[in-house]
Amino acid sequence: MEYNAVVVGAGVIGLSTAYHIKRKHPSSRILVVDKFNSAGQGSTAKSMSAFRCLFSSKVNYLLSDSSVDFYTYVQNEIGIDLKLAFVGYLWLLSKSEYEELHPILRGLAVSLKYEELEAEELAQKLHLNICLENDEEAEVLGLNDVYKGVLIPKAGIIDADCVVKFYEEEFLKLGGEIRYGVRVESLIVEPCKPLGLPGEPLFWQKSRISGVKTTAGVIKAKKTILAAGAWIPQLLDAVGIECFIKPKKRQVFAVEAKKPELKKLLYTQGFNSVGCMPFTILPKPRILIRPFPAEGVFWLSYADDFPRAFMLEEDPQPEKGFYEYGIYQVLVKYFPQFRDCRPHTAFAGLYEINTLDGHPVIFEENDLIVVGGASGSGIMKADAIGRIAAALYDGEEYAVLYGGRKFKISDLGIKDRRVEREKLQI
Amino acid sequence: MEYNAVVVGAGVIGLSTAYHIKRKHPSSRILVVDKFNSAGQGSTAKSMSAFRCLFSSKVNYLLSDSSVDFYTYVQNEIGIDLKLAFVGYLWLLSKSEYEELHPILRGLAVSLKYEELEAEELAQKLHLNICLENDEEAEVLGLNDVYKGVLIPKAGIIDADCVVKFYEEEFLKLGGEIRYGVRVESLIVEPCKPLGLPGEPLFWQKSRISGVKTTAGVIKAKKTILAAGAWIPQLLDAVGIECFIKPKKRQVFAVEAKKPELKKLLYTQGFNSVGCMPFTILPKPRILIRPFPAEGVFWLSYADDFPRAFMLEEDPQPEKGFYEYGIYQVLVKYFPQFRDCRPHTAFAGLYEINTLDGHPVIFEENDLIVVGGASGSGIMKADAIGRIAAALYDGEEYAVLYGGRKFKISDLGIKDRRVEREKLQI
Repeated sequence: MEYNAVVVGAGVIGLSTAYHIKRKHPSSRILVVDKFNSAGQGSTAKSMSAFRCLFSSKVNYLLSDSSVDFYTYVQNEIGIDLKLAFVGYLWLLSKSEYEELHPILRGLAVSLKYEELEAEELAQKLHLNICLENDEEAEVLGLNDVYKGVLIPKAGIIDADCVVKFYEEEFLKLGGEIRYGVRVESLIVEPCKPLGLPGEPLFWQKSRISGVKTTAGVIKAKKTILAAGAWIPQLLDAVGIECFIKPKKRQVFAVEAKKPELKKLLYTQGFNSVGCMPFTILPKPRILIRPFPAEGVFWLSYADDFPRAFMLEEDPQPEKGFYEYGIYQVLVKYFPQFRDCRPHTAFAGLYEINTLDGHPVIFEENDLIVVGGASGSGIMKADAIGRIAAALYDGEEYAVLYGGRKFKISDLGIKDRRVEREKLQI
Repeated sequence: MEYNAVVVGAGVIGLSTAYHIKRKHPSSRILVVDKFNSAGQGSTAKSMSAFRCLFSSKVNYLLSDSSVDFYTYVQNEIGIDLKLAFVGYLWLLSKSEYEELHPILRGLAVSLKYEELEAEELAQKLHLNICLENDEEAEVLGLNDVYKGVLIPKAGIIDADCVVKFYEEEFLKLGGEIRYGVRVESLIVEPCKPLGLPGEPLFWQKSRISGVKTTAGVIKAKKTILAAGAWIPQLLDAVGIECFIKPKKRQVFAVEAKKPELKKLLYTQGFNSVGCMPFTILPKPRILIRPFPAEGVFWLSYADDFPRAFMLEEDPQPEKGFYEYGIYQVLVKYFPQFRDCRPHTAFAGLYEINTLDGHPVIFEENDLIVVGGASGSGIMKADAIGRIAAALYDGEEYAVLYGGRKFKISDLGIKDRRVEREKLQI
């Protein structure tokens, strides 16, 4: 029994892809497999669950903007609560960072609404420490004064689990199949025309990926779709296909807004209709603060680069010292409200970083479709990525994103890739 | 005790780099370490030991052409025998391959001498089977008729071991140090200004590579130079640096020219002054035949792509079936002289493939210099690569290659890389 397609990975990318394929092919047999026991339990569950439409690259903007429009439609028109809230993104910038960002903002191929805020105004509204002069510790930490803020209104928070569940349910409603608790061990390579020779496929034979070997046996499919996030390169290396994706651990620390001054910060008025602080990015090193107003919590994170290893871990763990000697030290300099606050919980996941240019990678080779490399912004781009992968599955040249915008599929491929390096990765 | 530089890897790339640095800094302490017990015992020893100056990219041409000029100078002027012989490269091409190659040859940024040969002439000279029509097996193998040949005179064979020994001796004569039998386990990362905090370096600290941890203890250096070939990505992944290099096994099978018709083939006259057949490349799949006239042997190889794994192996082994069901089947169709011939010996090594564009990668980051990714043409480019790495070590913008040609170092870097994808990889 051969499926039309087997999708490896029931994270947000895999399920969006499966849903968009099934939507166009209701009678095709599409199977999703995942090693976990339910949807979105891998890196999707470890996401900061936030979104922004500000990217320096037009492609990233398109992917995010159209996906956010779709999520808004799902929540407002279909009436499925994704816990999407436009709390905004607030970039706090040192003078040199502002001078870097300003031309990018002005040079955007698309006009994205944003607002510049003066440091003094932010200091007042957020009880933010904007001046670190004469602070020896801040100097050791290499911190700079806040010079300006840039607020992006089309940005905010969402619930990754709700998004995943939405795609899962819609996919199942259409008759899609999912098998949880099934781990893919390898891709199966077979000659297109088997001859029964030892060691097939031999290099002079045309060969293809004919399915996957799993802990529950072999699953054959006309097309195999690899949407396994940080696990993609391991499976691809085994068959010698390059995808330019590498896994890297990312950690999130949750701090409760118990103290009155923290509560006040979390529920800062005047930035959005939600009545909470925006998702906030500190000056370099760019500590991220994600407000969780419904739970009375802040999520704190930092995407460290050198010398953080590219490493695949089955169960990545947050590191206590990363908060205590890392995030906390920087955080309290700008937001003294956090003094003496320790996280009550923390988690870690894996980014699937596209090391070429910070964009997703979507291509087909030998009946294998690879969909990955979302580089930490998978939630906010998942709908567009799924539509593009589904259009590639159909052999189209262009995908139509939500809202009708057309997208050239090969721009995210390997061979004819056409994207500018993203300058606003955080 | 801190070295000025520690070079990881005593293969041809590492020793050329070490030599060119030491030559410019005779009083600096430069140490080369290698896990093997003598020079060039890793992938260098597993090379086909051949060279060509034909590449589609100008950069690859420059690297190879200037290195070959240097080797020629070493052999002819200094009088050190590198067993360099201009036997030429002969590309046997099907019609469609010829139509692909022709515009590349005509479009070369540099004028490389080459000669087009008619199939009939080649058939006569080499007892080559140029017409595979009506041959069912050839059809199953997907083989095409030979339409033309292209002969490159500035190409041939060399002895990798002699080249390595040359660099080793010159380096030692200048006072360079080498420690064999020392395996590098990891790169050492340290904060530039240590504070004694737990978990240093913390992400807000500026940090650098300060040396290597080895089986013989810690070795500290102002600059660490990673020239470990296929082992580079493993060491770099651990500190989160991308180099776009992946290891892939390559196999070489040696067949003795015992039969008169094979002897006749090996010592074919009329192509070069050596009086042997040129290094010959069959039509797709491109089986490679390297003549070894001094030993009365042919070396046969094929650089297989999909689904050959990207995989690091400490001791890669040749696969019997790869010759028997792979190379041999194709080979005898074009050269029936090989009928019933089996290899008397075989070996396998690792290519360090640059998956971006097939060019070397030379860059510096945090006091670490990476020199690798020669993608199977390390021997023929080693001198230029060593000069470029040495110029990077000196903080230059340009390197001067042998013969005086200037080369912009950043063209082979990661950030401002400027190379066209190589179309003539074999």
